[in-house]
Amino acid sequence: MVLHALRAADCATLTEITRVTGLSRPTVEGVVEDLIGAGLVVEKAADEGVARRQGRPARRFRFRAEAGHLLGLEIGSHRVAALLSDLDGRILGAQAKEVDESAPADERLDRLRTAVAELLRRAGVPRSSLRAVGVATPGIVEADGTVRLGTALPEWTGLRLGERLSRSFKCPVLVENDANTAAVAEHWKGAATESDDVVFVLAGLSPGAGSLIGGRLHRGYGGAAGEIGALHLLGREVTPETLLSVTDEPLHPLDEQAVARVFAQAREGDEEARAAVDRFIQRLVHDVAALVLALDPELVVIGGWAAGLDGVLEPLRQELARYCLRPPKVALSMLGEAAVATGALRLALDHVEEELFAVEGTVTARR
Amino acid sequence: MVLHALRAADCATLTEITRVTGLSRPTVEGVVEDLIGAGLVVEKAADEGVARRQGRPARRFRFRAEAGHLLGLEIGSHRVAALLSDLDGRILGAQAKEVDESAPADERLDRLRTAVAELLRRAGVPRSSLRAVGVATPGIVEADGTVRLGTALPEWTGLRLGERLSRSFKCPVLVENDANTAAVAEHWKGAATESDDVVFVLAGLSPGAGSLIGGRLHRGYGGAAGEIGALHLLGREVTPETLLSVTDEPLHPLDEQAVARVFAQAREGDEEARAAVDRFIQRLVHDVAALVLALDPELVVIGGWAAGLDGVLEPLRQELARYCLRPPKVALSMLGEAAVATGALRLALDHVEEELFAVEGTVTARR
Repeated sequence: MVLHALRAADCATLTEITRVTGLSRPTVEGVVEDLIGAGLVVEKAADEGVARRQGRPARRFRFRAEAGHLLGLEIGSHRVAALLSDLDGRILGAQAKEVDESAPADERLDRLRTAVAELLRRAGVPRSSLRAVGVATPGIVEADGTVRLGTALPEWTGLRLGERLSRSFKCPVLVENDANTAAVAEHWKGAATESDDVVFVLAGLSPGAGSLIGGRLHRGYGGAAGEIGALHLLGREVTPETLLSVTDEPLHPLDEQAVARVFAQAREGDEEARAAVDRFIQRLVHDVAALVLALDPELVVIGGWAAGLDGVLEPLRQELARYCLRPPKVALSMLGEAAVATGALRLALDHVEEELFAVEGTVTARR
Repeated sequence: MVLHALRAADCATLTEITRVTGLSRPTVEGVVEDLIGAGLVVEKAADEGVARRQGRPARRFRFRAEAGHLLGLEIGSHRVAALLSDLDGRILGAQAKEVDESAPADERLDRLRTAVAELLRRAGVPRSSLRAVGVATPGIVEADGTVRLGTALPEWTGLRLGERLSRSFKCPVLVENDANTAAVAEHWKGAATESDDVVFVLAGLSPGAGSLIGGRLHRGYGGAAGEIGALHLLGREVTPETLLSVTDEPLHPLDEQAVARVFAQAREGDEEARAAVDRFIQRLVHDVAALVLALDPELVVIGGWAAGLDGVLEPLRQELARYCLRPPKVALSMLGEAAVATGALRLALDHVEEELFAVEGTVTARR
């Protein structure tokens, strides 16, 4: 409670902490001493403006957000990325590296480790200061950090990703599906801060989705919730790479530049490209509608490529209003490319907060 | 805690309650006296077998499940039904009445009131003994018991169902979607007692679904979760009533007897009927797959007509294994026709338990 009060305030006196927490003065003094001993709290240097020398000024304390650090890592088809923050979740630096879509797992993980090492060095943060690492990856992730199924990346299915990355860190490593972390990120500081019931759609040639229900990530029984990539096999026997092609050949499933070209051509008025984009939007509507009918969220956030696609929102809203008995609000991702890594960082922060505020964590629902 | 302990045991002595609850003897004595005063607990008559006359036998107390009663009501296209139970959820009686699918709302509610009156009279339970009434209805139900949208029944959209039925009862009336209550029922005492992550599909010409996530009903932000009836508009532009027709004319959307005839003909080897049923199963797979991909449940329970349809499970399992990255278990409803009303009763029981065990109810999750 003391830590919570100190973290909420910029800094506070013992009297203020006593008032906010409802604890006794001796208890607060004892806890603050312990927290100072643990390096989590520090006495603030006397501030002249506050003190004004009318007797000895009250001692003021503050939470040491710099007492530890967190990483949010993203592993994608074409790039790996890392975000660094302090214990308040304030971003201290970012690093991304390109990686070939055909790179084997070892090479992909090496690129990620290099990005992390460079980021830590640039920020002057020792590795020992890391308290938790969140990792976002495509695919279905099991509770132990193993990738149960991941068709987007070579050698990914069956990879013990959590274990592999744990060797590089002394702190806990938490692995989560990328669409799931993006949903968490938009709820934290993106397009979904006002809603606790959110579906985030990572639109792409192999679309995925993440859901928050009552503000909490819904992973599903086996971590596969929102893996809607197979929806295109149902109903219409067509894939996004066929729909978006303007030739007789389907696009390569990971060729995002080819996709960007089709979108650009459509914006420039090319009729064939426009028809292809229309087909893609219809697919997106189909995927989103299935999610919305199943979950009934308050808000749908569209990320992935569609975030760069002008005019996707209006047709999506219209079509959802046609198909859904209670149509949700629809918004574009605010975090864009940063959403996935930002959500991974938030999961690391959640983990540390649970540890720091463990007393609160023990009060769990019984129903 | 005392009430909880007494309810869990058949009957208990003060010493036993003291041990189980960890409370002091005087506290337990005081609480038991209060509960006796409230009519919820009674001293059990001395049992000869237990007492054996070695000194005065310890007083034994039991929860008075007969201290109050609950109703679970079902409103459907062709029938209304009512279930009566005591405070332990033990079923004391049931009553159903046919109603015409075209009956206006007033007539449908009158039939339901008649069923309730007959049920209470037959069971000898005074209306004043009712502690809560659960009501299951087709359509999207808002938190205040208003039917936001209900196309299956005439005059149903916009009906203030909770308010209308409240006039007949002095206790709380809780209204819920029928597929949702069926999911709750299968979890309580049906095919899903072993799983907390369940999707229940009420298969029919206008299919619906209810979901439990972590053992709790997932209603969705606006109560519309699982309203998958519109899925058939996506992908394939075909409706179940067209798929199941063996003529050029679609079936009437509420004509369940015509559906039963097609199923029967298929079982007898009629090829046209068999093809129609195959088409219907494909549709069902499509609906179920969309739910499964969105939610990733441990178990899917199929109710509604499909429960009477031999051989629906195996094709459903095979198809789900094709489409879903982590296929769920699939089972048929065990409660059949009784599922919807049973779930409505369970919601009434949940409500009363929350009141009785209100102390426990105040410990809620903070995250």
